[in-house]
Amino acid sequence: MTTIAIVGITGYAGEVLFKILSKHPKVSVTHVCAKIDAPQRLDEIFPYLKGTTDLICELPDIEKIKKSAELIFLALPHKVSMEYAGKLLAAGKKVVDLSADYRFKDVATYEAYYGITHSDSGTIAKAVYGIPELYRGQIRKTSFVANPGCYPTAAILSVAPLLKDRVLANRPVIIDAKSGVTGAGRTLRLDLLFSELSENVRPYKVDSHQHAPEIKAQYKEILGKDIDVIFVPHLFPGNQGIEETIYVELSKPIGEDELRARYQQFYQGASFVRIYPKNVFPQTRNVINTNFCDIALKGSRNNFLILTACIDNLYKGAAAQAVQNMNIMYGFKETEGIL
Amino acid sequence: MTTIAIVGITGYAGEVLFKILSKHPKVSVTHVCAKIDAPQRLDEIFPYLKGTTDLICELPDIEKIKKSAELIFLALPHKVSMEYAGKLLAAGKKVVDLSADYRFKDVATYEAYYGITHSDSGTIAKAVYGIPELYRGQIRKTSFVANPGCYPTAAILSVAPLLKDRVLANRPVIIDAKSGVTGAGRTLRLDLLFSELSENVRPYKVDSHQHAPEIKAQYKEILGKDIDVIFVPHLFPGNQGIEETIYVELSKPIGEDELRARYQQFYQGASFVRIYPKNVFPQTRNVINTNFCDIALKGSRNNFLILTACIDNLYKGAAAQAVQNMNIMYGFKETEGIL
Amino acid sequence: MTTIAIVGITGYAGEVLFKILSKHPKVSVTHVCAKIDAPQRLDEIFPYLKGTTDLICELPDIEKIKKSAELIFLALPHKVSMEYAGKLLAAGKKVVDLSADYRFKDVATYEAYYGITHSDSGTIAKAVYGIPELYRGQIRKTSFVANPGCYPTAAILSVAPLLKDRVLANRPVIIDAKSGVTGAGRTLRLDLLFSELSENVRPYKVDSHQHAPEIKAQYKEILGKDIDVIFVPHLFPGNQGIEETIYVELSKPIGEDELRARYQQFYQGASFVRIYPKNVFPQTRNVINTNFCDIALKGSRNNFLILTACIDNLYKGAAAQAVQNMNIMYGFKETEGIL
Amino acid sequence: MTTIAIVGITGYAGEVLFKILSKHPKVSVTHVCAKIDAPQRLDEIFPYLKGTTDLICELPDIEKIKKSAELIFLALPHKVSMEYAGKLLAAGKKVVDLSADYRFKDVATYEAYYGITHSDSGTIAKAVYGIPELYRGQIRKTSFVANPGCYPTAAILSVAPLLKDRVLANRPVIIDAKSGVTGAGRTLRLDLLFSELSENVRPYKVDSHQHAPEIKAQYKEILGKDIDVIFVPHLFPGNQGIEETIYVELSKPIGEDELRARYQQFYQGASFVRIYPKNVFPQTRNVINTNFCDIALKGSRNNFLILTACIDNLYKGAAAQAVQNMNIMYGFKETEGIL
Repeated sequence: MTTIAIVGITGYAGEVLFKILSKHPKVSVTHVCAKIDAPQRLDEIFPYLKGTTDLICELPDIEKIKKSAELIFLALPHKVSMEYAGKLLAAGKKVVDLSADYRFKDVATYEAYYGITHSDSGTIAKAVYGIPELYRGQIRKTSFVANPGCYPTAAILSVAPLLKDRVLANRPVIIDAKSGVTGAGRTLRLDLLFSELSENVRPYKVDSHQHAPEIKAQYKEILGKDIDVIFVPHLFPGNQGIEETIYVELSKPIGEDELRARYQQFYQGASFVRIYPKNVFPQTRNVINTNFCDIALKGSRNNFLILTACIDNLYKGAAAQAVQNMNIMYGFKETEGIL
Repeated sequence: MTTIAIVGITGYAGEVLFKILSKHPKVSVTHVCAKIDAPQRLDEIFPYLKGTTDLICELPDIEKIKKSAELIFLALPHKVSMEYAGKLLAAGKKVVDLSADYRFKDVATYEAYYGITHSDSGTIAKAVYGIPELYRGQIRKTSFVANPGCYPTAAILSVAPLLKDRVLANRPVIIDAKSGVTGAGRTLRLDLLFSELSENVRPYKVDSHQHAPEIKAQYKEILGKDIDVIFVPHLFPGNQGIEETIYVELSKPIGEDELRARYQQFYQGASFVRIYPKNVFPQTRNVINTNFCDIALKGSRNNFLILTACIDNLYKGAAAQAVQNMNIMYGFKETEGIL
Repeated sequence: MTTIAIVGITGYAGEVLFKILSKHPKVSVTHVCAKIDAPQRLDEIFPYLKGTTDLICELPDIEKIKKSAELIFLALPHKVSMEYAGKLLAAGKKVVDLSADYRFKDVATYEAYYGITHSDSGTIAKAVYGIPELYRGQIRKTSFVANPGCYPTAAILSVAPLLKDRVLANRPVIIDAKSGVTGAGRTLRLDLLFSELSENVRPYKVDSHQHAPEIKAQYKEILGKDIDVIFVPHLFPGNQGIEETIYVELSKPIGEDELRARYQQFYQGASFVRIYPKNVFPQTRNVINTNFCDIALKGSRNNFLILTACIDNLYKGAAAQAVQNMNIMYGFKETEGIL
Repeated sequence: MTTIAIVGITGYAGEVLFKILSKHPKVSVTHVCAKIDAPQRLDEIFPYLKGTTDLICELPDIEKIKKSAELIFLALPHKVSMEYAGKLLAAGKKVVDLSADYRFKDVATYEAYYGITHSDSGTIAKAVYGIPELYRGQIRKTSFVANPGCYPTAAILSVAPLLKDRVLANRPVIIDAKSGVTGAGRTLRLDLLFSELSENVRPYKVDSHQHAPEIKAQYKEILGKDIDVIFVPHLFPGNQGIEETIYVELSKPIGEDELRARYQQFYQGASFVRIYPKNVFPQTRNVINTNFCDIALKGSRNNFLILTACIDNLYKGAAAQAVQNMNIMYGFKETEGIL
């Protein structure tokens, strides 16, 4: 059994990581910690776990963490992860980091969008961006995965085949995203109260969300050159799930069926990407609590193409994809524990 | 007191019409009817009305309707309204029709999108399209208003100033719309059950919704020539409210502040359109149960402009706008009963 | 126009008070205030108000409040109201207090359940408990109303006729209450986040809620002697609305129809209490955004009787009932502005 | 691998059965069927299953079913199950029936409450009522389990220790139950639409629900004599989950701590019943998608005791408990596939 530590267990991603990993047949969670007032039984923090675990949630201590496990999941906010990742790697540990801290090869972009100075920029180069469907080979060999953001995961998987094929016109990719409210984390904010969110839909950080440069950087990585992204996220009154409707323009006419066939080809063997048949569209319900990314294509007039994609922000958009990365790093079956 | 009949009182729009009109100081609802099994007290159909009305919901009978009131609201599905509107007008009545039957000057477009033959096409020319902010003058003089669709109302109000100013590039207007579930009407469909909709977001009728040609026709009306529209509606798990995020391209650079000033100018004196300040965005909560249309502008790179707009689909998108039209037709204060 | 001040406008009850009073034909809201960082336009705090008001939300200042209006609504938490009520009354103002501070004639019970010392106990005797259906006469003559709690309002209205008739056995009245989440106020608590509340039902303060002694005291007031109350509140995933299912035991057999007739008699002329016909039961939907209290009776075996009652916690359970009390205090039509 | 058929796969219970059984390490689902128009791939009926199964949903055919599997789950409405159970048993199959058809030893009570004549009453005697925590021994030896109703499961588990100990006064047990809407099944009813249910709480079938006699019969079974039950179910706006608050009266004073200790003793070794510590109460969130039944006790004055219990109506209240019964029937680990 591979031993596992989860740092930041009390956030939504950490919580889901524990749900998945505690039933995973190849690993054993040996340590969990979070910034709480004092060590506490995990089943007191999450009463629904009673009868299923005796783990204590400890306070984060890098020396303890090092000794506790072979692989460490950092389910931490940005800026906090950078205090751990480099040191754990230096101690010979494997790390999957769910924060944004190591996702940007270009540290200046990161620093501009997150408004902070990176204190561990030397470690960035070691990180593999953890979209298994694109970077499986590198993930297999690395000790350090920077797990993608939730919005970028859907945005990248649904546009990658077009970028790879170089069939996009040099026009902005327009991404209209809708997310359930766990995307904002377990955070005390008035605007996240039930009474403020229910029955409400709202755009936020219009064309200024920190996931836009992450998407743009990954598009560039695949395409080999810059392409603009207009990204508008919205909150909808549900807990989990992201739907993205993406409007792109092709550089030349290609039929919808032909494109669908290319997508199926591109994702052949990818257990977690499902390409929908003609005129059937994804809905968040179909992916909730799963690691699937569902994608549909719809051709429009004048070379326009409409993509619709759904993931669960906490699963394929965070914890389950992190486990998928772990499975690859350790040579486990890629679907182990998450299908 | 102007006497009022509501035909189709049991649908969501008819129900909201009654809520508004029964408190309106200038009118008296004298007749309500709907296709039900047998005449029934309205407060039995809607128990929350008990203690507020003694009206009986009758079965629809055109002769009775004619005698019952001066103004008739038709809150009917498309295809059904056309059985009433022409005849009521011929009898000297005023009519506000909430269906799609008389919204299209071009009957061929209507017939193509709604899949039926129009049995009263001769009456279409008499209808004024009921967006008061654009056609107040015509509404004042008409006996017949074709009340706009919910999605078109927000789409037209938020783009009209740009069309009027002729500052749009010849590119499709991309409209990504999110609607609460009352948009689908009070209809027995498995996919409208609570257990299927809650926690779910989904696109539907992608680039093929019947409101797209309505929007396109109205854009053309304002612009004087065709402009393409890509329209993708989504359902979100709430009852009321529409949010539309609209991506347009300007034909030349114009600053966001300058555009905002133009919008404020364009809607000066319009009590129900609210232009938001910089970096503040509409949310459906702000317009629920009101006749407001809230609009924000956000400039992006390369002449792109992002508009976000919210209305309540049952109020500004249906019943309250119908009352606004009535107010204008009768010379009442435009905000009477709806502010 | 009677001038009105609302102290504590930013809470849910204060907000609803403003919604109602700003449309009330007999009054004019001349002052609103709340503990915020600095004075701010009310339509900035509640953007949905834009275009409907130019009021500034001031910081609470008792001297300003005194000069601002004839009647002051205190929409404040318990313990805070007592800093204002006595002083405002001494200055010749009328006051409707929505907090719990003046609801208990027995200050010891108040102090025990709320865990504080009452600093203005001398004023308590002046307060009339504001259930208009029971105390209309006293309310007409008073300058000071202690507006009832939300749970007590439904509990009192639905049991009062039985208490008055002295037909209850000497057994505890069992009240199982379900409330929407606005009942907890606009409060920053992790357990009030959307992501914690949605899809969740939970009991809280089981047999230990501070509204239990309020109910008990009022039952005693009506009955003339003590009767025990077992009160268990629950939160359900909705915003507004309270449903109470109440289990009582009669001292002798009385038929359900007979009891229903007595209720109808008891509430004859009460515009806001609706007694349901046989085998039809209230639901919160029927009372949302209204001042109604809906009540149904269902007889069971062995002299057991089951009452079900619904109110909107923010309307009949707080702000609208406060306005009903104001209407009576000023001799306005009792339903003015709230029907 | 034990082969399994699920009859009635398209209902909520059948769907959850498949979710659980398709991941269960000891069994293989070899046949699924339901009354649909024509045979169809299961992943077309439930698109979220795509990529996980190739099963075809067949039309129900008793001969096919007999040949398809060793154990058949009947996830059918009452009245339909009786067409299958007896015949399948006669063919040597094991059966777990999730309908009400075989839960009542007294067929007259069944016929009275369900309003039909039982066409297979001879088989009733063979059925073991499937509450494993009470009847594990009989379940181990039977070929036929009548799986309990959702409300009865929580009601029985939370009162059983008191009944067994004979410490209840001869007074009605008052059960106030709240259920998510999947309890009503996947049924086309106007009152189950999202737009009718959201933001709504309502009682239904007050003191007349068909689960009341099931609870009463089981209480009698445990107690050895009749005890009355007053049962009032409510719908809350969530999908899954049942909360029951139960008011009982003890025949003599017993401390809350003493009772809690007895409950812990009673359920020692029961993996799926969790007794809560003092002043902590269950919430549906803690049991969603699990087979747990969470129970808390709160003593009140005058020998009253308040029990609060939560289960997931589709899991412990239906499908997961059915699997628990299967595990026992086959000698698998009782928690296999459901913990």
